[in-house]
Amino acid sequence: MTLASAPGKVILFGEHAVVSGIPALGSAVDLRARVMVEDLPGGLEIETNLPLKGFSLDLLAGRLSSKEALYATRYVSAVLEELGATGLHIKVESDIPPGAGLGSSAAIVVAALAALSSHLGLGLSRVEIAALAHRIEKSVQKGLGSPMDTALATFGGYLQVSSCVRELDLPPLALVVGHTEIPHDTRHEIDKVQSLRARHPDLVEPIFGAIGLIAERAVYLIKELKLAELGELMNINHGLLEALGVGTKELSELVYAARGVGGALGAKLTGAGGGGCIIALPGPAGGPTLEIALRQAGARVFHARTGSEGVRLGA
Amino acid sequence: MTLASAPGKVILFGEHAVVSGIPALGSAVDLRARVMVEDLPGGLEIETNLPLKGFSLDLLAGRLSSKEALYATRYVSAVLEELGATGLHIKVESDIPPGAGLGSSAAIVVAALAALSSHLGLGLSRVEIAALAHRIEKSVQKGLGSPMDTALATFGGYLQVSSCVRELDLPPLALVVGHTEIPHDTRHEIDKVQSLRARHPDLVEPIFGAIGLIAERAVYLIKELKLAELGELMNINHGLLEALGVGTKELSELVYAARGVGGALGAKLTGAGGGGCIIALPGPAGGPTLEIALRQAGARVFHARTGSEGVRLGA
Repeated sequence: MTLASAPGKVILFGEHAVVSGIPALGSAVDLRARVMVEDLPGGLEIETNLPLKGFSLDLLAGRLSSKEALYATRYVSAVLEELGATGLHIKVESDIPPGAGLGSSAAIVVAALAALSSHLGLGLSRVEIAALAHRIEKSVQKGLGSPMDTALATFGGYLQVSSCVRELDLPPLALVVGHTEIPHDTRHEIDKVQSLRARHPDLVEPIFGAIGLIAERAVYLIKELKLAELGELMNINHGLLEALGVGTKELSELVYAARGVGGALGAKLTGAGGGGCIIALPGPAGGPTLEIALRQAGARVFHARTGSEGVRLGA
Repeated sequence: MTLASAPGKVILFGEHAVVSGIPALGSAVDLRARVMVEDLPGGLEIETNLPLKGFSLDLLAGRLSSKEALYATRYVSAVLEELGATGLHIKVESDIPPGAGLGSSAAIVVAALAALSSHLGLGLSRVEIAALAHRIEKSVQKGLGSPMDTALATFGGYLQVSSCVRELDLPPLALVVGHTEIPHDTRHEIDKVQSLRARHPDLVEPIFGAIGLIAERAVYLIKELKLAELGELMNINHGLLEALGVGTKELSELVYAARGVGGALGAKLTGAGGGGCIIALPGPAGGPTLEIALRQAGARVFHARTGSEGVRLGA
């Protein structure tokens, strides 16, 4: 039996502007996906706790039907197909809620690649895993798929991503994630912003520019742990994302719950918007107060420590 | 008996950026303040339905104490003092909620100046009334007081205001105003934004720039009655005001109620923020649907037609 795990991620700053080449700042978090591989001669079985706990799919003779397959199995199937692997029992477990913009699929793909590489003796390097994972994500998601998700799942830590990916050495932050549990369509949100940009370039470009400045300044503020100012920039960034039209009533409720009763230093939506999650930076009242405020506002809450380790063998 | 009335106003676009010389766009609305003047030999009495209905203050011998006086009487007292007028009974009635950013005090001051000018045969021109009213507002409000409020109360219609005031000939819009009834402190909100600007000029200046572009483009869109696009710009502008930190939970709730169930083409906070009102542009579902949505979200609702007539003798 071979076990590998990879982390989920949060985008801290730079959503949407990154599509126009503005560097975004993301971090791996300590919510992980785990993939276990063992031999199953003559068969191929993928088992997952996602999204239906305990659901198990038996795909004989490698005839994979990714369209009908469920969330995790779709990605694992694509990995198996890519590697031409069969005769295996694969079990996927994940702490990362799927469809929340927290890099759940990238973590599964990366962990699966690492587990299979080790189990089958393929000797894939981390750079190869990241590149392969990005390609697989893009193919499953029909062209979409941020290199940030797969790079963070692989390398961990913090990354600045534009046309290239730059690793940053920054201290961890204890964030609280509030999940609206409202499904969102990343492609739809990206298209919406790009359409706004096409119609109003003179409005959207300065907004992207400001988002880029925030993402840059945040690197320094995290390094120096200037958390009050970092929170302020989160709030500004959230407003700019509202201006781009990717806010929702529910995201806004969570953001104000976090900043108000939750005592957060700052809060913003994370990822594409239109649903999904917010991230909030706890204030002096601490994470538990923030968690209660977000729960009362209807969120599913996760505590997420940034800067987590990337893919590894073991849980 | 002499009666004069003057309109309240809404800021359509350009709040906060106007402090930095960006032209803001405002309009008089069909909510009016009415001031009645009649002789009261040897006495001076100010009666108002604001903010306590039927409250009446008897100030003998012209000894006016504006600090302790109530909302409307404070402004009327300042007008009387300015004109050296006494021996009068003055009655103030207003449709405009005070402290909502809808220009209630400017309408009262302008209507009082017009009624007194006519009653006492002072022959003040509209330009003189506007200038005098602005001076009185500034003195009562300790230096604060937008020239937009007094200019719109005097001249009516639409105005573009920066260092100078420009009249615009534009068709009326049927807006719906949602009042949070949360008191706000205009000076505090302005100071907050200016402090943000001092700390992050490279973030705030592009936001002001985008707000300025929106205020300019809106003039064209109102002229052509391109309401869907106008609504979109309202939404963008609201996000930019959120980025400047003048949004609140309650304003956000109203904005999303308007855009969601209310079917508004667009919605934004109006004025300084931190409380006060939002304005929403009804969609095909119409004003009544929008009104219900805003009431259900906890707002006091006003229907406000823009481009209303300025100060006039009569109601």
